[in-house]
Amino acid sequence: MFSSSSPLPAPLEKVFQYIDLHQDEFVNYAQKSWIISFGEWVAIESDSVQPVPHFRQELFRMMAVAADMLQRLGAHVASVDMGSQQLPDGQSLPIPPVILAELGNDPTKATVCFYGHLDVQPADRADGWLTDPYMLTEVDGKLYGRGATDNKGPVLAWIHAVSAFRALERDLPVNIKFIIEGMEEAGSVALEELMEKEKDRFFSGVDYIVISDNLWISQRKPAITYGTRGNSYFTVEVKCRDQDFHSGTFGGILHEPMADLVALLGSLVDSSGHILVPGIYDEVAPLTEEEINTYKAIDLDLEEYRNSSQVAKFLFNTKEEILMHLWRYPSLSIHGIEGAFDEPGAKTVIPGRVIGKFSIRLVPHMNVSVVEKQVTQHLEDVFSKRNSSNEMVVSMALGLHPWIANINNTQYIAAKRAIRTVFGTDPDMIRDGSTIPIAKMFQEIVHKSVVMIPLGAVDDGEHSQNEKINRWNYIEGTKVFAAFFFEMAQLH
Amino acid sequence: MFSSSSPLPAPLEKVFQYIDLHQDEFVNYAQKSWIISFGEWVAIESDSVQPVPHFRQELFRMMAVAADMLQRLGAHVASVDMGSQQLPDGQSLPIPPVILAELGNDPTKATVCFYGHLDVQPADRADGWLTDPYMLTEVDGKLYGRGATDNKGPVLAWIHAVSAFRALERDLPVNIKFIIEGMEEAGSVALEELMEKEKDRFFSGVDYIVISDNLWISQRKPAITYGTRGNSYFTVEVKCRDQDFHSGTFGGILHEPMADLVALLGSLVDSSGHILVPGIYDEVAPLTEEEINTYKAIDLDLEEYRNSSQVAKFLFNTKEEILMHLWRYPSLSIHGIEGAFDEPGAKTVIPGRVIGKFSIRLVPHMNVSVVEKQVTQHLEDVFSKRNSSNEMVVSMALGLHPWIANINNTQYIAAKRAIRTVFGTDPDMIRDGSTIPIAKMFQEIVHKSVVMIPLGAVDDGEHSQNEKINRWNYIEGTKVFAAFFFEMAQLH
Repeated sequence: MFSSSSPLPAPLEKVFQYIDLHQDEFVNYAQKSWIISFGEWVAIESDSVQPVPHFRQELFRMMAVAADMLQRLGAHVASVDMGSQQLPDGQSLPIPPVILAELGNDPTKATVCFYGHLDVQPADRADGWLTDPYMLTEVDGKLYGRGATDNKGPVLAWIHAVSAFRALERDLPVNIKFIIEGMEEAGSVALEELMEKEKDRFFSGVDYIVISDNLWISQRKPAITYGTRGNSYFTVEVKCRDQDFHSGTFGGILHEPMADLVALLGSLVDSSGHILVPGIYDEVAPLTEEEINTYKAIDLDLEEYRNSSQVAKFLFNTKEEILMHLWRYPSLSIHGIEGAFDEPGAKTVIPGRVIGKFSIRLVPHMNVSVVEKQVTQHLEDVFSKRNSSNEMVVSMALGLHPWIANINNTQYIAAKRAIRTVFGTDPDMIRDGSTIPIAKMFQEIVHKSVVMIPLGAVDDGEHSQNEKINRWNYIEGTKVFAAFFFEMAQLH
Repeated sequence: MFSSSSPLPAPLEKVFQYIDLHQDEFVNYAQKSWIISFGEWVAIESDSVQPVPHFRQELFRMMAVAADMLQRLGAHVASVDMGSQQLPDGQSLPIPPVILAELGNDPTKATVCFYGHLDVQPADRADGWLTDPYMLTEVDGKLYGRGATDNKGPVLAWIHAVSAFRALERDLPVNIKFIIEGMEEAGSVALEELMEKEKDRFFSGVDYIVISDNLWISQRKPAITYGTRGNSYFTVEVKCRDQDFHSGTFGGILHEPMADLVALLGSLVDSSGHILVPGIYDEVAPLTEEEINTYKAIDLDLEEYRNSSQVAKFLFNTKEEILMHLWRYPSLSIHGIEGAFDEPGAKTVIPGRVIGKFSIRLVPHMNVSVVEKQVTQHLEDVFSKRNSSNEMVVSMALGLHPWIANINNTQYIAAKRAIRTVFGTDPDMIRDGSTIPIAKMFQEIVHKSVVMIPLGAVDDGEHSQNEKINRWNYIEGTKVFAAFFFEMAQLH
């Protein structure tokens, strides 16, 4: 697996050997008291999206297990109480604590802070999982389970990299801090306030931030990420009355809420993917010749990408167009409808009150509040033209900013070297179409440079059924993190 | 409650007294061995819409309980095995038996056959029920429960009317047959075949058919129904792949199935309720002056109707337009989407495969197969204009014919007289916007005249949350059926 042309530095060689020899422990077993296996973490149903007590309890358990493990690794750990969350229906749910941990405080070393999250997207076996989503299952070198790649696997890989140095009784080349949350999939509720509060305390000694919460754009070639899209998540409710109607008894004389909602959702985006909300493209950064060249340099086999995505045909035919529409142009997705008939069978109902859900991925330099106004205005215009007697309410449930970084910072150079050491190749320098709002927060609140070092392959299916991470990515990724510690120490 | 101007015939007076005196038994208790109370029937979760074993078992229990009761009433009862049902997913479920029962076979009397169904629409307390849908609960004279008005209550009222004659040891004025099924809400699966088989056997001696499976159009004034709309229920599936996508990782480069589906559903009906499928109105019977006059004669307080429906504004402002759009024009309702995100919360998913559901209520002289072709062609046209790379499949899951009767038949006259006897008023002569396919089957297969004598009030909310029947409607309705037996005997 190791194929660098230059010889491996001696201290790293031992660490890599250790990781290779102990990989089964990292996946399956917990032989050392301070190692928690991947399987145990995946078994915790830490779903932060569905606001029900069971999952919330699992989230608290998840954070307690992680805090306990970091403590046993020798870290100083604080589990910060985050208060509670008011839901739209009036219900109040406690927010799981955020872990702030420190390992080493040698003033001569660089301090690297790792951000990760241990909450996951919903997963229901009935949705098409081939294995129990909450039981890590290895098939042909693929580790299947909810959170395998997003984000439990990468968080554990970082911890295992640290543990390898400890097991070999070697000093860590850098001071390490951890900020680990349990509400990322629900929009990192209350995290921004915590960062404001901690910017001159916990974050004051931090030099660099590392996040590993996205994917490569290839199945085999590693990548470093320097930008992500934001996200504005909207709900649009159309209500005639709270009760449903019988379509025989009332069909033909009602302004049916579903007809209104379908027209509203149908007004958002055309069949070429172009967003129809007036003004939405106004603030999108203009495309430069230099930027186009960066897309050309990227190694992307469109045919392989299309096959691994199991998509018959994309909206665009060239690598450059595909990358630009994933990274530097906004996109709009309709997620679904709450309150309508959504089960198998044929129910003859006119839903009385329905809630459409869609979101827009934002890019530099779109502004969340401007987008909120544009979308609301657009839907109000469309709705008013229908002369419907129903009530419509538009809400922006989440508003997350896009992020972009300077790729000449020290840690980008260290990350590139670490990847070259482990994989023997330069990484793709990429952006990510999905949203990791904390990157923008680190930039704006803590004023630290962020690098994203993804571990998972393009076909990992995060947020989807049958999410996985390859054992190869997981174990080689652990080595990349170990090498990154070493390179950061060299460059500091 | 009895307010007729003419004196009540002696035999009926006794029967009415009996019904008034024993009404609590009909609702709550089972003191006589051959009376089963309404509460016991509602407690059986005989949902035929959700194709899961639990409900199917409950359906079988429901039919067994009903068969047992008719037997104890003295009827000759056959429970006809209906075989099993193949679901689209390959699963096979047994169909509950149909009850064919006979009470009396005096050749000098008329033979009246009563059709009813004991299956119900789905009911989940979480959908907004104020009481347990499967526990009959009386509040202010209203009997709440799934199936209270559709159709368990009316079936029991008919049986209680028969039982009153029996309790008083009086001969029934007519021979009575029962056909009771358990799959009406699922489209009366396999019933048509049974009727074909029985047309010269069970149905050979039948003179008239009575159905009581719809509602008045007023809260206080009774009605007789002489026509119903049909229903063509469609699914339209749009598929990119079986798995869902993450909207960050794939948003911007996909033909998203939800965007296609929303456009397809949005092409079906405009904001004034007009169906946009080309040719769909071609076969709708032309409106005559005479027909308009029948609507004018109907007693409908639009304001009361609007208030009881809890609707801010209907599509039309006059009684005549409202009635025509419920009864003699087709309507299209969008019921919901299967496969998209339908829960509370904010999930950033691009559904990979979604199934839209809608149905068209058909009126004379629309033809089910023609409608199927028109809808399929229309959706294919709309879809092909989108140049989407997804797959679309249109299916008609149900195709049920509209029905209309001759209101000068004997049993219409008998029903009118019975209503005048009990309520002291002439009934509204109405049609029904919803579908009772068996009416059309009786007309076309058995060649018998059908009358519908609804018992429930307009605000009963069948198919909806908090379905109910008023105790008044239930008990006076029992008297109407008793009086109907008497009048049929007089006219025969």
